[in-house]
Amino acid sequence: MKQHTLLMPLDMHLHLRDGVMLENVAPLSSYSFSGAVVMPNLVPPVTTKIALLDYKHRILNATGQNRYDDDFDDLLEEEGFGGDFEPFMTLFYNNYSKEFLEEVADEIIGIKLYPAGITTNSESGVASFDLNEMRPTLEAMSDLEIPLLVHGETDGFVMDREAEFMSIYEMLATAFPKLKIIMEHITTKAAVDMLSLHDNLYATITIHHLLINLDDVVGGMMKPHLFCKPIAKRPEDQAALLSVALEGHPKVMFGSDSAPHPQHAKEACGCAAGVFTAPIALQLLAELFDENDALDNLQAFVSDNAQVIYSICPEFKEVTLVQEEFKVPENYSGVVPMFAGETIKWSIENVD
Amino acid sequence: MKQHTLLMPLDMHLHLRDGVMLENVAPLSSYSFSGAVVMPNLVPPVTTKIALLDYKHRILNATGQNRYDDDFDDLLEEEGFGGDFEPFMTLFYNNYSKEFLEEVADEIIGIKLYPAGITTNSESGVASFDLNEMRPTLEAMSDLEIPLLVHGETDGFVMDREAEFMSIYEMLATAFPKLKIIMEHITTKAAVDMLSLHDNLYATITIHHLLINLDDVVGGMMKPHLFCKPIAKRPEDQAALLSVALEGHPKVMFGSDSAPHPQHAKEACGCAAGVFTAPIALQLLAELFDENDALDNLQAFVSDNAQVIYSICPEFKEVTLVQEEFKVPENYSGVVPMFAGETIKWSIENVD
Repeated sequence: MKQHTLLMPLDMHLHLRDGVMLENVAPLSSYSFSGAVVMPNLVPPVTTKIALLDYKHRILNATGQNRYDDDFDDLLEEEGFGGDFEPFMTLFYNNYSKEFLEEVADEIIGIKLYPAGITTNSESGVASFDLNEMRPTLEAMSDLEIPLLVHGETDGFVMDREAEFMSIYEMLATAFPKLKIIMEHITTKAAVDMLSLHDNLYATITIHHLLINLDDVVGGMMKPHLFCKPIAKRPEDQAALLSVALEGHPKVMFGSDSAPHPQHAKEACGCAAGVFTAPIALQLLAELFDENDALDNLQAFVSDNAQVIYSICPEFKEVTLVQEEFKVPENYSGVVPMFAGETIKWSIENVD
Repeated sequence: MKQHTLLMPLDMHLHLRDGVMLENVAPLSSYSFSGAVVMPNLVPPVTTKIALLDYKHRILNATGQNRYDDDFDDLLEEEGFGGDFEPFMTLFYNNYSKEFLEEVADEIIGIKLYPAGITTNSESGVASFDLNEMRPTLEAMSDLEIPLLVHGETDGFVMDREAEFMSIYEMLATAFPKLKIIMEHITTKAAVDMLSLHDNLYATITIHHLLINLDDVVGGMMKPHLFCKPIAKRPEDQAALLSVALEGHPKVMFGSDSAPHPQHAKEACGCAAGVFTAPIALQLLAELFDENDALDNLQAFVSDNAQVIYSICPEFKEVTLVQEEFKVPENYSGVVPMFAGETIKWSIENVD
């Protein structure tokens, strides 16, 4: 039976939420990933050092690494949900002072910029991209080598939002050539093409944008559990994403953008955006890369590239995947995953 | 208070379904419309004269014009759901013989062609557009002056399906210049542009495709009750549809494509395609045309053009609309309409 081992898999874009949801979903990521870049779009967003450290503490608690309750820790370990897992923390972009940034630089892996109102809990994001207003913060980030992570969408027509944002990437990449800018969860050929135009532009790609296009969301039945922002685009966009992911392109990293919503919020009359993939991401990646004869490039996509781009040394973890069918649960504590109830072709055999 | 009177409004594309659903929705159309072109995609589809006449009988029953139960008729009248209403019947396209077509010609207003599998209950539609196979039927239809009504979509990418179908319209319109071809529920600028290229091409347009584009379906929250086939397209497509509808373009007719589904089938994990607008279509049209200073052209769009194109003389009906707010019910017998629970600006004041 075909096996494939990954070292230190990393999820470079993850939503863990807070409270009960955090308790439910964090162990699903810490089980199979060495670390994850944790998004700061809580309510209110993470904008202070104390909020950041508190949130990190709650994440470590939820992943059984920092608990007061030893019995629960043991239980998690027994169920295979223990293990080392590093939450790489991010701040929600504001025009921060250099003093503040110096103070938090060691605690964060980057700062996440949301255009205002563009997705879940992003209301207090950037309303206009005025370089004069943003320059002090972005220059300080550049000096302090703090990467800028960007949700790159305008408020235009849903199929054009990402492509329209390319001029802003262009402007930022040119104005701050030493600032590492990560185009998060890219979905278009336009964004893929940007990678070769600016040395300081990088990208994360989700597993769902590699597997689906708009046809899968609304081409047959309408599928709320495949509805996400940015929305899946055209087949030629999907092909461009697949091409750079499967080759393990050095500027491209895996970031699940796994976004848990309670089932009722996904299946109501107006459903919330977000696909939940964290517990099945590695299995799906193994299946996809295997079917494209690209398993040898998966290590780069899912860990090595991110280690180089972010200069990080993640916790040791060895995940052995095996080509054995796995029936995806209908839900994880009330959160419906992608492919709920369906059978996928690869499983996790072992985590060390 | 602003008023506007419409004479003999017609819905040139309507789904009435069958059984209990038919009983529930037919009176909602017969109340305010003089007649409607009834789609034949039942299970099984309407392909024989006896099925056609039986279905027409059930529709007349459901609209209180042919009942054995006089008490129920009286009740409907009291509630304002009586009145004359003509169901213009259609057959589901097959390669019929001329003999058969001669036999049914007087009973139908046209024949509806579905590409196989393209929408609800269309599995037995046309699998390939082979002119040699279709020629005898289409020539007979042309001779007998039976219009061809077409659901014009390929099985391609969801945003391209209608535009890709234009070459088939081109082929049909050229090969059968005397055959009236109705491009049903058009959603693109590409289809609008076809109207000026071939004398024998006409179109119906829904109210929802005049009011929404893909942004409204998946641009914010995902809206299952705005999900339909063909899916709403780009803003420039919506603008092209609006332009010909608002000018009362003589080749363009109103057809609601109102398609009732039980609420559970719209709000499940994979939701069915179809927007239910029959009971609010005229009110929405009045609001839209009024806001665009085009009320004077509504009569052409909603009746006169269809009378000329199809050479029909509908039952007399006078519908007076008034600019008075109307709160759309949350559902009609379990069918959720467009704008459920929202307030629209025009109401029906009176039907004579």
